[in-house]
Amino acid sequence: MLNRLLITGAAGNLGRMSRTRLSHLAKHIRATDIEPFERLSDQEEIVTADLADATAVTQLVKDCDAVLHLGGVSVEKSYELIEAANLRGVHNLYEAARAQGMPRIVFASSNHTIGFYPQSQRLTVDAPTRPDGWYGVSKVYGEAVAQMYHAKFGQETALLRIGSCFEKPVDRRMMATWFSYDDYCRLMERLFTVPKLGCPVIWGVSNNSCGWWDNSHIGWLGWTAQDNSEIYRAEIETLPPRPADASDVLWQGGKFTADPIIKD
Amino acid sequence: MLNRLLITGAAGNLGRMSRTRLSHLAKHIRATDIEPFERLSDQEEIVTADLADATAVTQLVKDCDAVLHLGGVSVEKSYELIEAANLRGVHNLYEAARAQGMPRIVFASSNHTIGFYPQSQRLTVDAPTRPDGWYGVSKVYGEAVAQMYHAKFGQETALLRIGSCFEKPVDRRMMATWFSYDDYCRLMERLFTVPKLGCPVIWGVSNNSCGWWDNSHIGWLGWTAQDNSEIYRAEIETLPPRPADASDVLWQGGKFTADPIIKD
Amino acid sequence: MLNRLLITGAAGNLGRMSRTRLSHLAKHIRATDIEPFERLSDQEEIVTADLADATAVTQLVKDCDAVLHLGGVSVEKSYELIEAANLRGVHNLYEAARAQGMPRIVFASSNHTIGFYPQSQRLTVDAPTRPDGWYGVSKVYGEAVAQMYHAKFGQETALLRIGSCFEKPVDRRMMATWFSYDDYCRLMERLFTVPKLGCPVIWGVSNNSCGWWDNSHIGWLGWTAQDNSEIYRAEIETLPPRPADASDVLWQGGKFTADPIIKD
Amino acid sequence: MLNRLLITGAAGNLGRMSRTRLSHLAKHIRATDIEPFERLSDQEEIVTADLADATAVTQLVKDCDAVLHLGGVSVEKSYELIEAANLRGVHNLYEAARAQGMPRIVFASSNHTIGFYPQSQRLTVDAPTRPDGWYGVSKVYGEAVAQMYHAKFGQETALLRIGSCFEKPVDRRMMATWFSYDDYCRLMERLFTVPKLGCPVIWGVSNNSCGWWDNSHIGWLGWTAQDNSEIYRAEIETLPPRPADASDVLWQGGKFTADPIIKD
Amino acid sequence: MLNRLLITGAAGNLGRMSRTRLSHLAKHIRATDIEPFERLSDQEEIVTADLADATAVTQLVKDCDAVLHLGGVSVEKSYELIEAANLRGVHNLYEAARAQGMPRIVFASSNHTIGFYPQSQRLTVDAPTRPDGWYGVSKVYGEAVAQMYHAKFGQETALLRIGSCFEKPVDRRMMATWFSYDDYCRLMERLFTVPKLGCPVIWGVSNNSCGWWDNSHIGWLGWTAQDNSEIYRAEIETLPPRPADASDVLWQGGKFTADPIIKD
Amino acid sequence: MLNRLLITGAAGNLGRMSRTRLSHLAKHIRATDIEPFERLSDQEEIVTADLADATAVTQLVKDCDAVLHLGGVSVEKSYELIEAANLRGVHNLYEAARAQGMPRIVFASSNHTIGFYPQSQRLTVDAPTRPDGWYGVSKVYGEAVAQMYHAKFGQETALLRIGSCFEKPVDRRMMATWFSYDDYCRLMERLFTVPKLGCPVIWGVSNNSCGWWDNSHIGWLGWTAQDNSEIYRAEIETLPPRPADASDVLWQGGKFTADPIIKD
Repeated sequence: MLNRLLITGAAGNLGRMSRTRLSHLAKHIRATDIEPFERLSDQEEIVTADLADATAVTQLVKDCDAVLHLGGVSVEKSYELIEAANLRGVHNLYEAARAQGMPRIVFASSNHTIGFYPQSQRLTVDAPTRPDGWYGVSKVYGEAVAQMYHAKFGQETALLRIGSCFEKPVDRRMMATWFSYDDYCRLMERLFTVPKLGCPVIWGVSNNSCGWWDNSHIGWLGWTAQDNSEIYRAEIETLPPRPADASDVLWQGGKFTADPIIKD
Repeated sequence: MLNRLLITGAAGNLGRMSRTRLSHLAKHIRATDIEPFERLSDQEEIVTADLADATAVTQLVKDCDAVLHLGGVSVEKSYELIEAANLRGVHNLYEAARAQGMPRIVFASSNHTIGFYPQSQRLTVDAPTRPDGWYGVSKVYGEAVAQMYHAKFGQETALLRIGSCFEKPVDRRMMATWFSYDDYCRLMERLFTVPKLGCPVIWGVSNNSCGWWDNSHIGWLGWTAQDNSEIYRAEIETLPPRPADASDVLWQGGKFTADPIIKD
Repeated sequence: MLNRLLITGAAGNLGRMSRTRLSHLAKHIRATDIEPFERLSDQEEIVTADLADATAVTQLVKDCDAVLHLGGVSVEKSYELIEAANLRGVHNLYEAARAQGMPRIVFASSNHTIGFYPQSQRLTVDAPTRPDGWYGVSKVYGEAVAQMYHAKFGQETALLRIGSCFEKPVDRRMMATWFSYDDYCRLMERLFTVPKLGCPVIWGVSNNSCGWWDNSHIGWLGWTAQDNSEIYRAEIETLPPRPADASDVLWQGGKFTADPIIKD
Repeated sequence: MLNRLLITGAAGNLGRMSRTRLSHLAKHIRATDIEPFERLSDQEEIVTADLADATAVTQLVKDCDAVLHLGGVSVEKSYELIEAANLRGVHNLYEAARAQGMPRIVFASSNHTIGFYPQSQRLTVDAPTRPDGWYGVSKVYGEAVAQMYHAKFGQETALLRIGSCFEKPVDRRMMATWFSYDDYCRLMERLFTVPKLGCPVIWGVSNNSCGWWDNSHIGWLGWTAQDNSEIYRAEIETLPPRPADASDVLWQGGKFTADPIIKD
Repeated sequence: MLNRLLITGAAGNLGRMSRTRLSHLAKHIRATDIEPFERLSDQEEIVTADLADATAVTQLVKDCDAVLHLGGVSVEKSYELIEAANLRGVHNLYEAARAQGMPRIVFASSNHTIGFYPQSQRLTVDAPTRPDGWYGVSKVYGEAVAQMYHAKFGQETALLRIGSCFEKPVDRRMMATWFSYDDYCRLMERLFTVPKLGCPVIWGVSNNSCGWWDNSHIGWLGWTAQDNSEIYRAEIETLPPRPADASDVLWQGGKFTADPIIKD
Repeated sequence: MLNRLLITGAAGNLGRMSRTRLSHLAKHIRATDIEPFERLSDQEEIVTADLADATAVTQLVKDCDAVLHLGGVSVEKSYELIEAANLRGVHNLYEAARAQGMPRIVFASSNHTIGFYPQSQRLTVDAPTRPDGWYGVSKVYGEAVAQMYHAKFGQETALLRIGSCFEKPVDRRMMATWFSYDDYCRLMERLFTVPKLGCPVIWGVSNNSCGWWDNSHIGWLGWTAQDNSEIYRAEIETLPPRPADASDVLWQGGKFTADPIIKD
């Protein structure tokens, strides 16, 4: 059992769910976000902090033996916002970790690192990245940072390329990308438990029949996704059909591939 | 023949050589660097500019139909310097290009994107990146930016992972990584001439017998490296032997892999 | 839901089964074969036609928005018969489709396109073809025609390499090649429903434990074979053993590999 | 040395060159084409014959111990013409060979079997075919026929995918596809001499720096292409530039990919 | 049904289990070991023999139509012991089999042929061997002997790389390597029944979620492992955690990789 | 420069040539063979020793900083002879080396480790072994021993799979397998000079146009074979042709594949 787990992005959707469902992983949970938010239990320490502030991030990591890094920008935004949170913020996190015993990190990467692959192609994690916007670029960068700190200093990180982590799929593309809360939580339990983690890329996705991503390389973790979006097939097929050339029909990154560059 | 070629990093070693030896490629050369430097000929327009300054970069790209992007930090430095020149600077360049007709770009990437591969491994450009420091990370990021602009907008870039572009090899590792000026110049001629370039990764290396990098995928360019470091073998073998566990014996990135994190 | 589905080879085994079990896919079913046959319901239009007759085929495709092409020769026959039905016939079908809005086609290809692979080898659809007779050759040709029309004009086709589509397996080889009617029908539902199909090769086979063919590349279709021939294992193992050098023990194409060239 | 070599398509460009330059391979040359043509020497037997005529083809093959099959349609034509010469004609040739001792065959296949690959992709012969028209389809079929006769009866054939076999390259695409007469002739000498040939696919192309096709798999033949189109580079680069989206810039098959379907 | 099955190593753990659970495979079981042991039933012939004694081994194989070769050294030992039993002994067995009709052999190979692969790597049977001690070396040798006799004489052998064949997993590594008795027995039934076996390498492992070994290449056998070590997960996770750099955490071969060379 | 190089098998063909041509590599050469032989120079220490004698081998390795292991049986022989020299002898060598500072070893392995691959297949060193006799099996074993000592103790060995190392090729198969003395000597210079060797498998073959073996993985050594058997082509082609089904036409191991098992 962990002593103190830092959860960044704690006020977001995944952050809140993680605080509720993964509270058994650690004695203390340090939950942080850029804006104030409510405490869920006595177990939690709440800290408001900006990831772009190196001093603040050093304080966040202090005394933690594990980090679940969900924080930062998680959709397409302006370069300035992405630079602050996802470029500088990740730098700050890894420097803070290096200075403080290198707690194991789970890094929320994204399918948008490979968004420009067609949906008809099956991918292993060795496929070269094809980011679909500045957000995707920032996640390619984040993975590179983690791998560099692993090769150079031994810092362990799970690079979790999350598909669509929601209650259930709500459109056709999510039939492929859905990552159930249960599968997510079972994975977290393994990631923070296995004696040796290294720095693997992992597809954050359930065992969907119509999925695109091959996770056979991390069988050794002792985690196999169990949920399957097919139980929602009937419901999803009632939605109006999509045109054959729509971005969410063509590309694994879906509509992100059609996003323009966003200016402030 | 190009009308106006922008060369960034024009005061550096490669920049000066390029301005001398590639002047036939364009009617006008716009040469830029962060510090003042001397003009070489009437053909040149000299501009001092900081890549981190978006407005300045927009001015740089104006009226250019090609860009040779050698600018930015080219060795291991502090995060702050790398962020300004190699993260924000690359953002600025691609936004400037997108706004102004998408001139073809040659991007000076680096072998430090894959520096943590052992020297005994032969690599194709599909090998996942393994950067060996913050400089290497910034080049992984730059490649991702270029690929994203290509997939999204059609911007063409040659991602040239330069080995060691010098007069001649001066140590054992450079026997593998040496990129002769002649091979460099012949490649540039092709990169700015072929009707369609796309966004390929290219190893910037000569035809060294003891090289690690497989360029067979870009045969279609009509460029084959012709020089071979073996002509310097006798000279190099007179150097004192290196220990078997030295970073420049173990890793493709050489001593960069042993660099610490640099603070300002 | 489709408006009018053309089913060729409608009087054959698969044709009859498809007309019964897939009638919900379209408002109208146009069923055709070379010899007269009986109508199954009001929904059906019955047309007798020779696939070698271009004019007749044009009429067949008229007003159809989908084609299930089961017609033509489906076992080893003389070249003349195969040329008429499977070479010229396929030409006629694709020209008719091109002239009339390119209705989506499911093309009944065959495991006899790869019949000369040993049974001990697992195959992906990228394996070069190894046809086991003139019938197999004609299916390699049919796949080539479909791929050419897709690359050139955008015509969509599912190239379904059917194993053994019968009620149940009746010999040892069919334990590997069996394609259950249920799996077949579920696949057809997906093939005519997905927004974008392209021109994939698909193994038409159930989820048999002892199968040879890897369908993981079409996970995106949202179809996974569910039936498994192992439920018939006990029954099959009561059959007399086969010699180790029998064609149906050695080759994926089974006895077809031992067929002579058939003359009229 | 061969006794009697049958050369089909003998009146065509390659046919004439072969008769002149390969006359030392056999005591007798039987030269055939569909139209009358002139005899070049006493060594030659001239026969006019239609490949679609099975009886005539049987006579052609009689007493031959080798066949150089250059005959049939060699550019995009109507289906009817292709069916007669390239589908039925190939059937007739292989049946005639099977009945008469299976003389070794060199089959002139074509790069149009894979014409729809982009020029930026390097290909091995294992790449799935992507024909670029009916002519390309007929060559996929011809390769399938040869492979079937090899697997079933032991008939040996070299499947030679000829690029552009001319005096010299005359456009940019031919810099990649050029097959010099000298390389062609040296290859023929090996194909008719090696003790065991099997049924390999071979790229018929010179050692062009900018080529797309990897022939390393047939090193065992003892043939390595020696000519390189680069000696014509300067000449070719004087031609007007081609647009980036032209079919001869995009696709390996060049302008064939843009050909319409030809009707009689 | 077999007539007489020879089981070597019959007094060992696997030997005893096999004699009990596989007695239905043959009319007669000839059980042998180097030391005396008890007979289990009337069906059994008990022979004490040293595998290093060629004459004795010839007698063992006499009148047998199948061999389950579990005999020899099965853990790390001195070279002398391994030479006698696993080098000379295997020679003797294959020579005896060659002289007496080549009964089908199941050879108990071991995961220690590949023990020096990291646990984070998924392996197919094509991965080059990386033995983890003299025992592992002797099994690489045994596989080579079997493959040579197959290629040269047609002798069939199943090269079964056994993981950990015990009642249940008792440590973390065995979660990956566990081979249940039920899966073992079902596999044996298939190995001695299929009409043609050849000489495949097979991972002897159950269908463990956290396994490392890919058995998809022998799907054609009609055997799929059914048991999964995950049912013991809770029990195993109560064990004290292992350090990240322990040999049984790092390597597939576990503690064998840390064994010293053993002298008599 | 080495201090003392041990050359085993010193009286054989390769041994003598090595002593003559590689004498500059070390101050002292310790030359050993099982039978007495003559000293070539003052530099040499001559020792008669049996590799099967552990004590003798320990004495051989004493004070050596490098070993060129050419000793042992080098053609097909009885198991007893092979066991003594190639199994036990290799054990003795590696134990002696381990006890005495682990001098770098070059191990003469053989193409007979992969002799049962067809000549039409190109091989990388990752191809699973297919030995063609007991000699080939003993070399598979020797490679396994070396790899185990490397993984376990760091012992470095070059596993040199020698083709045919003679003055010149004398038959058709040797056109592919010829390893010139010059290429051999240049390779030895590199193997004993590079700072780090590891334990690579290397094809011992010249740069023959018609070769089967791909050495691109050891480019990093700084050795590229320079000789090419084609200069002997005309001479070789005057030899009488070989039947298509001869062992030396079919298999990479040539006539060894047809050798019977040899008894004393």
